[in-house]
Amino acid sequence: MSRSVAGPEIERLIQLMARLPGLGPRSARRAALHLIKKRETLLGPLSDAMRVAAERVVVCRSCGNVDTSDPCTICTDAKRDPSLIVVVEDVSDLWALERSGAVPGRYHVLGGVLSPLDGVRPEHLNIEGLVSRASEPGVGEIILALNATVDGQTTAHYVTERLSHLPLKITRLAHGVPVGGELDYLDEGTLSAAIRSRTAF
Amino acid sequence: MSRSVAGPEIERLIQLMARLPGLGPRSARRAALHLIKKRETLLGPLSDAMRVAAERVVVCRSCGNVDTSDPCTICTDAKRDPSLIVVVEDVSDLWALERSGAVPGRYHVLGGVLSPLDGVRPEHLNIEGLVSRASEPGVGEIILALNATVDGQTTAHYVTERLSHLPLKITRLAHGVPVGGELDYLDEGTLSAAIRSRTAF
Ligand SMILES: [Zn+2]
Ligand SMILES: [Zn+2]
Repeated sequence: MSRSVAGPEIERLIQLMARLPGLGPRSARRAALHLIKKRETLLGPLSDAMRVAAERVVVCRSCGNVDTSDPCTICTDAKRDPSLIVVVEDVSDLWALERSGAVPGRYHVLGGVLSPLDGVRPEHLNIEGLVSRASEPGVGEIILALNATVDGQTTAHYVTERLSHLPLKITRLAHGVPVGGELDYLDEGTLSAAIRSRTAF
Repeated sequence: MSRSVAGPEIERLIQLMARLPGLGPRSARRAALHLIKKRETLLGPLSDAMRVAAERVVVCRSCGNVDTSDPCTICTDAKRDPSLIVVVEDVSDLWALERSGAVPGRYHVLGGVLSPLDGVRPEHLNIEGLVSRASEPGVGEIILALNATVDGQTTAHYVTERLSHLPLKITRLAHGVPVGGELDYLDEGTLSAAIRSRTAF
């Protein structure tokens, strides 16, 4: 039913826009038309910003954050507490926690959670890197800031097991996080409270 | 509350994404992160597609459609009925009607509707261009395919008045269009039926 009604250049733009999360075919068409109408003020600048991001954004080999430097700005921030590492599933969770301003330390992005159903096993996540970082002298606490889902909590248990030989305090977020909820959708206040009230794991 | 948590290159990408219709700040962050993760398969190609669109898409000086040629592909399509012009508010409505496959003729995009409250007056719309095209020999019918809103119908009356000196049949879409609804949200079947059952204006 989706006849090609614009030229191939516009159709390609629409098709690529439709692959963005949150945009279906219809909203992709609206977004593409909006871009074409705002050629000078939005389409050109957005194309440039994407080009810059495509060329310059790298993944931090230490923590898994995305930034234009490796190690990233957070890893190289001397004002951060070197004894604290907050383990998250995804960069979006790192961003959400940073917005809360409640993390004095650094992060470690696992890149997912264990999921037997989806075939995600420990070797698919950046767990070796976490064990390595957690083994460094001066690290005293690991906060497991994983989603309050079954897979998230399974992953938390697995990570705890993998770190059990180290003299670390391992904590998790307080149950201010709604059961079944995802970090990235929570407001800053809830995330702050959950960090403050973290409990021994 | 929106602390800058990523580098300036990523923040700029997020801010520009947030200006797209249908994306708020949160979904813009998710979309930007999705793009960064799909650098090779989506971010690069989308940047290129936007660059191509920014450089090559033009507005057809005859009908107001957007395309990479002026006059546009529809205006230069020799298989189209030269006696019929379908007047629409926006290019999105042209696209919607083209998807229905029910228009054998060409289009004229007004670029909006008259709206005293929003200060949109006749000189802000491409009405002169329509009068000029409608005056050409061989044009026999003008279909007013405007939204079934108060402003859309006000505009239809105004356009009819401006064309009244010409020996034309002026029609409007049948009332298959829901009252108060907007063309771009209708399915192809409803639009086809509305074109087929068009009535004298
Ligand atoms: Zn880092
Ligand atoms: Zn045209």
